[in-house]
Amino acid sequence: MNPDITRERENATFDVEKLTHILDGDIEKTKRRREIESLVISDPDFQSEDLNFLSRSERYDAAVKKSAHMILKLREYGISDPEEIYCYKSCVHRGRAEPLDLHLGMFLPTLLNQASPEQMETFFIPAWNLEIIGTYAQTEMGHGTHLRGLETTATYDPATQEFVMNSPTITSIKWWPGGLGKTSNHAIVLAQLHTQGKCHGLQAFIVPLRSMNTHIPLPGVVVGDIGPKFGFDEVDNGYLKLENVRIPRDHMLMKYAKVEADGTYVKPPSAKLTYGTMVFIRSMIVGEAGRALAKSCTIAIRYSSVRHQSEIRPGEPEPQIMDYQTQQYKLFPLLATAYAYKFVGQYMNQVYHRITGDISQGDFSELPELHALSAGLKAFTTWTASAGIEVCRMACGGHGYSRCSALPDIYVNFVPTCTYEGENTVMMLQTARFLIKSYRQASAGHQLSGIVSYLNESERRLQPQSVSSRPTVVNVNDLASLVDAYKLRAAKLVEMAAKSIQQELQKRVSQEDAWNNSAIDLVRASDAHCHYVVVKLFAAKLGEIGDTGVHSVLSTLALLYALQGIQQHSGDFLQTGLLSVPQLSQVSQRLKDLLAQLRPNAVALVDAFDYRDEMLNSVLGRYDGNVYEHMFEWARRSPLNKTEVHESYHKYLKPLQAKL
Amino acid sequence: MNPDITRERENATFDVEKLTHILDGDIEKTKRRREIESLVISDPDFQSEDLNFLSRSERYDAAVKKSAHMILKLREYGISDPEEIYCYKSCVHRGRAEPLDLHLGMFLPTLLNQASPEQMETFFIPAWNLEIIGTYAQTEMGHGTHLRGLETTATYDPATQEFVMNSPTITSIKWWPGGLGKTSNHAIVLAQLHTQGKCHGLQAFIVPLRSMNTHIPLPGVVVGDIGPKFGFDEVDNGYLKLENVRIPRDHMLMKYAKVEADGTYVKPPSAKLTYGTMVFIRSMIVGEAGRALAKSCTIAIRYSSVRHQSEIRPGEPEPQIMDYQTQQYKLFPLLATAYAYKFVGQYMNQVYHRITGDISQGDFSELPELHALSAGLKAFTTWTASAGIEVCRMACGGHGYSRCSALPDIYVNFVPTCTYEGENTVMMLQTARFLIKSYRQASAGHQLSGIVSYLNESERRLQPQSVSSRPTVVNVNDLASLVDAYKLRAAKLVEMAAKSIQQELQKRVSQEDAWNNSAIDLVRASDAHCHYVVVKLFAAKLGEIGDTGVHSVLSTLALLYALQGIQQHSGDFLQTGLLSVPQLSQVSQRLKDLLAQLRPNAVALVDAFDYRDEMLNSVLGRYDGNVYEHMFEWARRSPLNKTEVHESYHKYLKPLQAKL
Repeated sequence: MNPDITRERENATFDVEKLTHILDGDIEKTKRRREIESLVISDPDFQSEDLNFLSRSERYDAAVKKSAHMILKLREYGISDPEEIYCYKSCVHRGRAEPLDLHLGMFLPTLLNQASPEQMETFFIPAWNLEIIGTYAQTEMGHGTHLRGLETTATYDPATQEFVMNSPTITSIKWWPGGLGKTSNHAIVLAQLHTQGKCHGLQAFIVPLRSMNTHIPLPGVVVGDIGPKFGFDEVDNGYLKLENVRIPRDHMLMKYAKVEADGTYVKPPSAKLTYGTMVFIRSMIVGEAGRALAKSCTIAIRYSSVRHQSEIRPGEPEPQIMDYQTQQYKLFPLLATAYAYKFVGQYMNQVYHRITGDISQGDFSELPELHALSAGLKAFTTWTASAGIEVCRMACGGHGYSRCSALPDIYVNFVPTCTYEGENTVMMLQTARFLIKSYRQASAGHQLSGIVSYLNESERRLQPQSVSSRPTVVNVNDLASLVDAYKLRAAKLVEMAAKSIQQELQKRVSQEDAWNNSAIDLVRASDAHCHYVVVKLFAAKLGEIGDTGVHSVLSTLALLYALQGIQQHSGDFLQTGLLSVPQLSQVSQRLKDLLAQLRPNAVALVDAFDYRDEMLNSVLGRYDGNVYEHMFEWARRSPLNKTEVHESYHKYLKPLQAKL
Repeated sequence: MNPDITRERENATFDVEKLTHILDGDIEKTKRRREIESLVISDPDFQSEDLNFLSRSERYDAAVKKSAHMILKLREYGISDPEEIYCYKSCVHRGRAEPLDLHLGMFLPTLLNQASPEQMETFFIPAWNLEIIGTYAQTEMGHGTHLRGLETTATYDPATQEFVMNSPTITSIKWWPGGLGKTSNHAIVLAQLHTQGKCHGLQAFIVPLRSMNTHIPLPGVVVGDIGPKFGFDEVDNGYLKLENVRIPRDHMLMKYAKVEADGTYVKPPSAKLTYGTMVFIRSMIVGEAGRALAKSCTIAIRYSSVRHQSEIRPGEPEPQIMDYQTQQYKLFPLLATAYAYKFVGQYMNQVYHRITGDISQGDFSELPELHALSAGLKAFTTWTASAGIEVCRMACGGHGYSRCSALPDIYVNFVPTCTYEGENTVMMLQTARFLIKSYRQASAGHQLSGIVSYLNESERRLQPQSVSSRPTVVNVNDLASLVDAYKLRAAKLVEMAAKSIQQELQKRVSQEDAWNNSAIDLVRASDAHCHYVVVKLFAAKLGEIGDTGVHSVLSTLALLYALQGIQQHSGDFLQTGLLSVPQLSQVSQRLKDLLAQLRPNAVALVDAFDYRDEMLNSVLGRYDGNVYEHMFEWARRSPLNKTEVHESYHKYLKPLQAKL
């Protein structure tokens, strides 16, 4: 064990294990997670060469191997709880995406949610037994977030009682679905339903893609891998071009909407039914933002405690780089953010489960608010976390750029969350739409409830209007007061966005153009709303924590999170008159104090995330801090070192030397 | 040609070709650059498979092949001007780093600058003829930016007149030098010189690494590749462990410092001699920030003009995504930034050449200011450009994540500039050191000249002190007035940082601790200083432009750049009383107007960067806008599609299906 990191742990002021339980949910969950991790990590069938040393085809191969093995093991151990499956899977693939993700996470759940009982009988058991390997094909080359624009067609032919599936244009080729390229033999395909001469919009169809015996693509199915990407090397994201592919009528998912034998279309009872899945996936992504950032902070903070560099005081030994204020300022707010997002993820998950209960009883009342909030929070957290991972990576200096740090991998595997499941700017505007609607309702005298209740007229009258009009009352040392400040900032920015729309309308432009011409303000308002929600939920979490030591360190983190956000957005707080210039100086000073205060607990706070070395797979983030020996050992194993002299020497350099 | 992109070009209000000449320097330079590009692009020996489809070893192999061929061609064509070599090399390797970079860019120049005439005779011609392939080994596993911390030793043995080179610790192993792992047979090694029982600090030594005949490492030389990285797949960044490697006395570079036969050490005449090289490399990096961002903007803006998505007005066709205000707000300020950095790069290059003339005549007077400025500007521009590349990538939605967009590649190959040649935060603090020193001189009554003259007492007395004390005079529509505002902001933030140090000192902490405890403020001050310099240089550039159309569009870009910086840092401008709250609203409105104003010229502005398709190598950034067909064609060529059924199906999935 590196003595620096040992000393860091000795200096911690709280019980790390207790904090781990809070992050997991409770002591039992921690225990169970560790059991599952041990099962996977000790299993020789899940060992593989370092993925960084493999080609993409080899990485895909290794992933399929592990996934196949995983399916067997899950059955053997009788693991069937979705959360436990997720935990097991994350552990097998070390948090990476894998070829069966969409089979497990989209194909099976979509069957469960949208297949009729007869369809369940036909498809579910084969899919459960991996005879049918499925994916979910929605995105097309020309259309992503805007679903109505999808072009794939399913035209009903009553003569044969079949749908004829087509990709009528190049832009309509399905593009991106995971596992589509090579792995899947079926896909749930989203297509525009045409029957009896009319288009009835998007429906889901089960389309066989490859022979169940030979895995060779079926006639009319042009399918393949979309090629190398920034990351996701293990996943065969695919393309699918359908050329008059005929599927039986019962291959349209018919739990809700239906097409009868003669081609009559029967509408589904509610359009909001798919909201639930979206909310669930977004809540998972928010949790993932917390995890990706937690991993990155673990690596960067542990490394910062063993890396010595430069000098603060001449003549003294080189200090740990974590002693530099600039290093603390880079990493500690991100550490606080990781905690914040983990708590937000927990909250969203709880709300989702509560609301799902209501929905199954036909109560959709809370869905619009949650749907709108989940869109914005997904965007808010994934943007910050993505940028934060890179800050962590660069905070490790040059070595962060090596794949042995694991940070490049964390980044490229996380950053697509900014785009998939709804492009982030579009998501922010979705939340903004809800905020503006709520604002208008409040302005019209309706009393809002829930998280947007701050938009009520009565609340808004309490706000300071400008620097001069009234003394501000924010106490920069009090978290509750800061939550209030964030709330008032959100209220003010929503109002400003609404007024911008109003001003545009006065120029006689259309509603739609007024909206587009105010989009910058709308995104800004959404961002402020989400920031308020995160600060509020972090503060609320503190109320649940009994242990004094843990409560104290988390309170410091929460305060740091809130104050750093204010410093970053100081323009907003000054502009809206919520803070004065002298208060802003106080914020700066207090932030510096908090960094120093957190310094002794930094390593313990990342230890509490409880990532085993096998899960982090980072030379820089090792628990024992013995970085350099292992970096050397890792490098020596790398492929270019298999021979002392690379063949290119004999092929090009030696002949060149002869010529010159 | 895609009709959307044709229409964009028709709508442009200026002569693209004229702007290209300004970017290149003049019409002749544009001509010559295009000649060189055509030479390379038409040369069949430089063709290769798409690098995205190759393994790392294959990419390294392909790069060595091209580099070897390039050396022959440069001789054949008689290209010897450094700028032309750089242009040719960039074109061969499409802007990527390559195995001979350090041979050409560091080994040869270091010989030229630091070798004695005798050493030139011994080493230069063999190096020029690539018998000696060299690299520059400075960074160690445990030490990067802080050079004094380097641990490699060179101990003089007068008995044999040799230096004994050693890597005494694991942290002293040389780590990262490009071309060190496999390509080079020599290295210039930076090591602590020990002679006559004393350490005389860092000196440079020429160390033979591999046999000139067999390329096998010499005894005592442990050398290899450091393993895969985020990018730089073509480069064999290497490690080097020296175990009692003996080199003759004349292998220490002795133009300045010397060790005599008996071991007597002779000091060099000035310690500032190496500053020039650093300044030059940093000026190149600033230019590279402009280029990386220019390429990224070219791709994102062209794609935004052909991509249609979602709806602004219901019922109408899907608009080009460039019509969304949010998309304009992401891309146009980055476009302005790319122009700004290109002009800053030009400026630094000019100043460097001017000053180099002075230095060769023994005049070092301007060097400290330029050295300090180059450090900050390198950090300022590389941070912004790195983040900007990712914004461009994500502005392309999902397809930006595909390697066919080229954006992942641009990012991973550019982002190391934030770390190499001086870690960015350390660079910012170097600039801050100069600013604080200048501030103190000014406070002590000295009259400063040059770019920091705004720190003079007389200047500072003109500044507004707080919101209430005096009316602000900034005109948000006038670029000169905005340059002034940036200047006053910088002055204020330097003052605040200086005061923070003062306050710390009053707590009776040491100078060094006071500095570290104010580091956040110091970085912020540096950042403001650099921002001021960039805005000022952009404004100055406008003065050189005669063509009305070009002048007009660049003026709009410059104003956008300045106003967006103010919006992003509105807290600073409010806090320092330079802008009022109503003015900030004006800034927001004006920004929106400028976005709309630039919209018709966006494609033309990226066309003016004049990147040929072969140089961009991006399906999304194609000049003809025919994105989708080529994306499909690219995907079909990718390695996983070489077989219809991947072997993993037979190995794992088929057997699994039998078991379940």
